[in-house]
Amino acid sequence: MGAGLGEGEGAAVEEATGYEVGIVVPKLSRAAAAGPAEDCVARLVRELEGAGLLVERVRGVPAEFIKLAAPMGTLGRAAAEMQMKKLTYIGMELQFEWDQVAAFVRQPDGSLFSWRERYCCFSYLIYGIVNKTNSEITLKFDGKEFHWKKNESLLTRLESEGVVKLVFPLHDEIKRKQLLRNWALNWLDFTWQPIDEIYSYFGTKIATYFAFLGMYTRWLFFPAVFGLATQLIDFGSLQWLVLPAFFIFVISWAVFFLQFWKRKNSALLARWGINCSLSEYKNMGNELGSLGDSLTTEEKKFGDVSAEKRNLQRNEWFGVLLRIRNNAIIVLAIICLQLPFELAYAHLYEITETEVMRYLLTAIYLVAIQYYTRIGGKVSVNLIKYENNQGEESSSASLVYKVFGLYFMQSYIGLFYHASLYRDILALRKVLIQRLIVSQVLENLIENSIPYLKYSYKKYIAVHKKKHEKESPSGKSVRLSTRVEKEYLKPSYTASIGAELEDGLFDDFLELTLQFGMIMMFACAFPLIFCFAALNNATEIRADALKLLVMLRRPVPRAAATIGAWLNIFQFLVVMAICTNCLLLVCLYDAEGNWRIEPGLAAILIMEHALLLIKFGFSHFVPEEPAWVKANRVRYVAQAQNVCSKQLLKSISKLDAKLD
Amino acid sequence: MGAGLGEGEGAAVEEATGYEVGIVVPKLSRAAAAGPAEDCVARLVRELEGAGLLVERVRGVPAEFIKLAAPMGTLGRAAAEMQMKKLTYIGMELQFEWDQVAAFVRQPDGSLFSWRERYCCFSYLIYGIVNKTNSEITLKFDGKEFHWKKNESLLTRLESEGVVKLVFPLHDEIKRKQLLRNWALNWLDFTWQPIDEIYSYFGTKIATYFAFLGMYTRWLFFPAVFGLATQLIDFGSLQWLVLPAFFIFVISWAVFFLQFWKRKNSALLARWGINCSLSEYKNMGNELGSLGDSLTTEEKKFGDVSAEKRNLQRNEWFGVLLRIRNNAIIVLAIICLQLPFELAYAHLYEITETEVMRYLLTAIYLVAIQYYTRIGGKVSVNLIKYENNQGEESSSASLVYKVFGLYFMQSYIGLFYHASLYRDILALRKVLIQRLIVSQVLENLIENSIPYLKYSYKKYIAVHKKKHEKESPSGKSVRLSTRVEKEYLKPSYTASIGAELEDGLFDDFLELTLQFGMIMMFACAFPLIFCFAALNNATEIRADALKLLVMLRRPVPRAAATIGAWLNIFQFLVVMAICTNCLLLVCLYDAEGNWRIEPGLAAILIMEHALLLIKFGFSHFVPEEPAWVKANRVRYVAQAQNVCSKQLLKSISKLDAKLD
Repeated sequence: MGAGLGEGEGAAVEEATGYEVGIVVPKLSRAAAAGPAEDCVARLVRELEGAGLLVERVRGVPAEFIKLAAPMGTLGRAAAEMQMKKLTYIGMELQFEWDQVAAFVRQPDGSLFSWRERYCCFSYLIYGIVNKTNSEITLKFDGKEFHWKKNESLLTRLESEGVVKLVFPLHDEIKRKQLLRNWALNWLDFTWQPIDEIYSYFGTKIATYFAFLGMYTRWLFFPAVFGLATQLIDFGSLQWLVLPAFFIFVISWAVFFLQFWKRKNSALLARWGINCSLSEYKNMGNELGSLGDSLTTEEKKFGDVSAEKRNLQRNEWFGVLLRIRNNAIIVLAIICLQLPFELAYAHLYEITETEVMRYLLTAIYLVAIQYYTRIGGKVSVNLIKYENNQGEESSSASLVYKVFGLYFMQSYIGLFYHASLYRDILALRKVLIQRLIVSQVLENLIENSIPYLKYSYKKYIAVHKKKHEKESPSGKSVRLSTRVEKEYLKPSYTASIGAELEDGLFDDFLELTLQFGMIMMFACAFPLIFCFAALNNATEIRADALKLLVMLRRPVPRAAATIGAWLNIFQFLVVMAICTNCLLLVCLYDAEGNWRIEPGLAAILIMEHALLLIKFGFSHFVPEEPAWVKANRVRYVAQAQNVCSKQLLKSISKLDAKLD
Repeated sequence: MGAGLGEGEGAAVEEATGYEVGIVVPKLSRAAAAGPAEDCVARLVRELEGAGLLVERVRGVPAEFIKLAAPMGTLGRAAAEMQMKKLTYIGMELQFEWDQVAAFVRQPDGSLFSWRERYCCFSYLIYGIVNKTNSEITLKFDGKEFHWKKNESLLTRLESEGVVKLVFPLHDEIKRKQLLRNWALNWLDFTWQPIDEIYSYFGTKIATYFAFLGMYTRWLFFPAVFGLATQLIDFGSLQWLVLPAFFIFVISWAVFFLQFWKRKNSALLARWGINCSLSEYKNMGNELGSLGDSLTTEEKKFGDVSAEKRNLQRNEWFGVLLRIRNNAIIVLAIICLQLPFELAYAHLYEITETEVMRYLLTAIYLVAIQYYTRIGGKVSVNLIKYENNQGEESSSASLVYKVFGLYFMQSYIGLFYHASLYRDILALRKVLIQRLIVSQVLENLIENSIPYLKYSYKKYIAVHKKKHEKESPSGKSVRLSTRVEKEYLKPSYTASIGAELEDGLFDDFLELTLQFGMIMMFACAFPLIFCFAALNNATEIRADALKLLVMLRRPVPRAAATIGAWLNIFQFLVVMAICTNCLLLVCLYDAEGNWRIEPGLAAILIMEHALLLIKFGFSHFVPEEPAWVKANRVRYVAQAQNVCSKQLLKSISKLDAKLD
């Protein structure tokens, strides 16, 4: 896999890489340039150059920018120093060594490091600049002086002093233009996307999102055609069979789609040089998370195995209890606060009579609910922070479940209300269309205009300030001339619920999941909805691509290479869809209410479904493997890798030379 | 994990091991002792001694026995020669090396090799005796002469000539007596078992079975008490709540039990030095199975990656289709042949009036059904053999599903008939008791008497023959004097459906699973059934232990260390139990049939349940990971282990010495 690529070629690609990271510092007033202490920005630049980075200083309108690039050798040494694990040709992850470079698998485009690995190296290099002398160094900034202590990171210090405003990845103009042409503005082939190029530009997480979105849109074509057919063709005496057939088709379609997505995700992992199966990859995240815990306990009482085991068992059960408590809080909040609000809205909607009023009501409601869910998201994030210390599951998955719970209630409870209480299929259809169109319009507006407005506002402020304060000597018109300052003013790709745990993909996935839930759960009420969804997604691909390439700063690359917890939510929605569509079919075929459901029968049916939910949900709380077993296993593997890394590498290099 | 054990102690335990494997050859008539060619048995003994084994010849009544023991060094060299993978202290499996012995994890009892590993080494040694000379060697047996060709295994040759009748593992009398005392005849503590001793005497697979049986019996205590309470206590006005509460309790109990079993199994894996998580372990079996395929394709066209990928994809889909076809055959056979038969029996049972006739009918039916299921099992085994070449899943799991399908229909369809058609709860209870008691009595009879009868018959034949033919010179009474000949005459531990794929555990698990299905699926009809089951299992543990220790030859150790496909069946039965108990509750609370289920509602409910089944069953057919991805991954890992094994071992030995 890429073993055939010549090394010279790969190296050439690497060397041509432009400036990849930018640091923002305030512009210095020239008057303050002289003094006893050294200027801190000058010192930073000197240290960055000393670390082997290529530095370019750019004076922009709102601030000054330090652009950084790194030759291959610098990155490689950083990777070796930070003991980065990297896949070798024999399928094992080993610590990177610069002189054994032939042993490591190269990227699909021939380069040695992926974008995420490069960014990690950059971070390591620039945050790794510490005061190595034995005394404090006095630095000054804009007249003020401060002390750079021993062994303190210069960049962290400057950030806390407010000198460095931001460190952010820079767009690569050549690749960005290429992607814009091939991908975002490629309107001919609706679902094809250059996944490998997206991967090498944005990293695994964003590439996985777009691969999923593309495959989902492609697969949506089938139910969209079937849905259209149910509306256009008159099946005569078999008309009563159409909806049940559509129901069965849609559920089977979803089951197939999700299973084949897992296969596709495995293939993607293989292509990106992640040499483990999907289930192992899922587990891996958890292991690395809990590794820290287990290693610290190990250090404390190495050898006292049974005490450690008891300790881990206690921690594990405490974590489970904490998670149950947090989930109970969220569920109670949803039921006691959100449910009455949603039902009030649904009821108001039902008694409002004019169409315009209804649209207005929906719009008001959608804006109001934004605040509720935002607060809910904040609460969830705070709950997660406590959980994080003990939890087995990765905190991001836990957050996804909690926030999805809020949105699930918000999005669907009104629809259920219409469907079940009033048995009013026509009203349900109208709400569905409104919801899909209004929420789609609103969300695309927010997604695509808010960033632009923010950017324009910031630009205006920056330019205006400059004009106003300084009365620029060079001329009347002040314009943003460099690319880096434009990028600096662009908003970043962050989640609406807070930037700590998730990036902007959270919102995109949430939107996709809610759409999937809507089309699946109410498939029988309105088969045509699949057409809307397919159209929506085809534009969504381009809109998201444009947003990432044009509207926003280049996002920081993240490690995840599966869609994670969202997959579980998709699967949960399929099960929900089975139940809700049955309910809809009963409403549709029993419009007169002749099929009386006795309270006893209803109670037993409800009990059945609740127990099925428990059966399939319980394993979520108690993991199959006790924490102490996992800790032992992971510790041994970590030991192995640390001990044997170097020895192995040499032999792999030899093997690789032979194979070449 | 045993690292603290001194080597001297471990070695001492090893050296004391007695004769572990026996070879059965016919007794030679003394007249034929002279001739030009060498006697083949004498040659075999000479070669066995040459291979480093300790040999003892025993002349018994029915035949002559060659008992084999091996000193530690011989086993170790064999293990190194056959490139046995073994867990090291750093948590990685590496090829065994005799001079790096300190690097490998020892067993819980301090010995270096587990019983399965020792048996593998024995097999390797005795079947590895080949003719290394350049010419054929002429051997004779009982007057006949035959040629031992170049590079041919002597034992295989002797087996095909009919000289060697059997190679079988011998009981270790000291350990057997100890287990008999501590385990099979330990009537005081009902569920405690010395799992580690069972493991070191019988291997992982049997130890896992008994661990599961013990835990299951212990957990059965809770629903048994609740079940007893529902029968004994009068809850007054809340009486109508008792059965639904019991239903919910039982389902939650089963869900908890299965999840905690998984945890226990993980802990067992850790204790037995299998350093991977439960899900990895499950995957591992599949990988090793398909490894052969992928490696042969690799040899054929190494380098042609895309052709190999295409090839693997074609094979994978062909395998899926074949599996679907085979399952369709089994399902059709069950529906078209078994269902009418079962319904006929159920109907006959319903119209028969005297109690005695009913018991008789049941007994006849149970005997008759034995043949049907045995034939079905044979058919399944044959279908599996075709499947085996292509299938993803391990063939043993596939067999388990098919045979369980047969037994499921056989065991429960009559009960469903009584429950649903006649709404006759009393008849259902009676059938349940009869079925549980009759089948328990029958099966315990078969389990425990058939082996003894077989043994007695064989013994009688052997002694009688000897008396008759030879008119023994030493005295009138001929008796079996040596232990080895008694063991030889005992039956082996084989499955009723054929010995190729499974051993006797198959039948034991089947019995356990059918019992679990019966008590779960009809819990509401008869809560007291849990008491019967708990009693049954408490005796079952002792009966099975006695069977293994006293009645049967020592079984050949097998590698499996989880309950495998049976766990999926247990989980399936829990889901089934949710549906059937709901049905039972409807029957119980709606005895007058006031809750009318309209055909439309019934159709929709059936559709819902069918779709839920599809949703949760589909992933069984299409694996998450494409075959070519898995092949790549596994190949790399295999390469890694082959290349780096020796280098790693040395460094682990050093590390281990430091830690000690």
